[in-house]
Amino acid sequence: MPLKDTLNAIVSSVDGALAALVMAYDGIPIEEIAVEQAEFDLQLLSVEYASVLKEIKRAVEVIKAGELEEVSIATAQTWVVVRVLNDDLFAALIMKRDGNFGKGRYLLKLKSYGLARELS
Amino acid sequence: MPLKDTLNAIVSSVDGALAALVMAYDGIPIEEIAVEQAEFDLQLLSVEYASVLKEIKRAVEVIKAGELEEVSIATAQTWVVVRVLNDDLFAALIMKRDGNFGKGRYLLKLKSYGLARELS
Repeated sequence: MPLKDTLNAIVSSVDGALAALVMAYDGIPIEEIAVEQAEFDLQLLSVEYASVLKEIKRAVEVIKAGELEEVSIATAQTWVVVRVLNDDLFAALIMKRDGNFGKGRYLLKLKSYGLARELS
Repeated sequence: MPLKDTLNAIVSSVDGALAALVMAYDGIPIEEIAVEQAEFDLQLLSVEYASVLKEIKRAVEVIKAGELEEVSIATAQTWVVVRVLNDDLFAALIMKRDGNFGKGRYLLKLKSYGLARELS
């Protein structure tokens, strides 16, 4: 399934989803689907979180606790779940704080194998 | 309840828990309970993750998506769940990857109010 369709399938199935994207650790987006206008800057969020993920990846390598797989970050307004796709790319789902975090996390994990295949 | 007792109650109730701690963003531990020897350096993990959390906190402030509340990071060998207690401190639960993440996350959230009170 093309990237765009997979990302669309995720955001349309999860209550409170704001956007789904595939991005490189350097903050360059590969594909992005935004479903509705958020109260904050999604672009800024993606770039800031990409920089943070790079830091997490580095920390995980220092600790030697195995490869990084998933990160989730909750703030008063947002839930963001990130799945690592490969050494360069990750997929992220951005939700409202009262969105269906469990389903979003599950779907992103499920679809991440297909996303990784599509990009390899 | 004293900090140590609360942290003990968390690690003894969660399958696969390795340690629970309260730490400042500068990496200085306030209290720590480790239940068993891990295959990696828990001290190093705490310090590295504290530095990463500081970065996440900074990113969240830039995005203006509300205060940071919770972060979880999964690697091939570990689950780490972090709850922000106040502007200076956070609580973290470090689990084996096959530990009971759901229960760990729930208990840390539940107990974090008491931990924050104990520290204010």
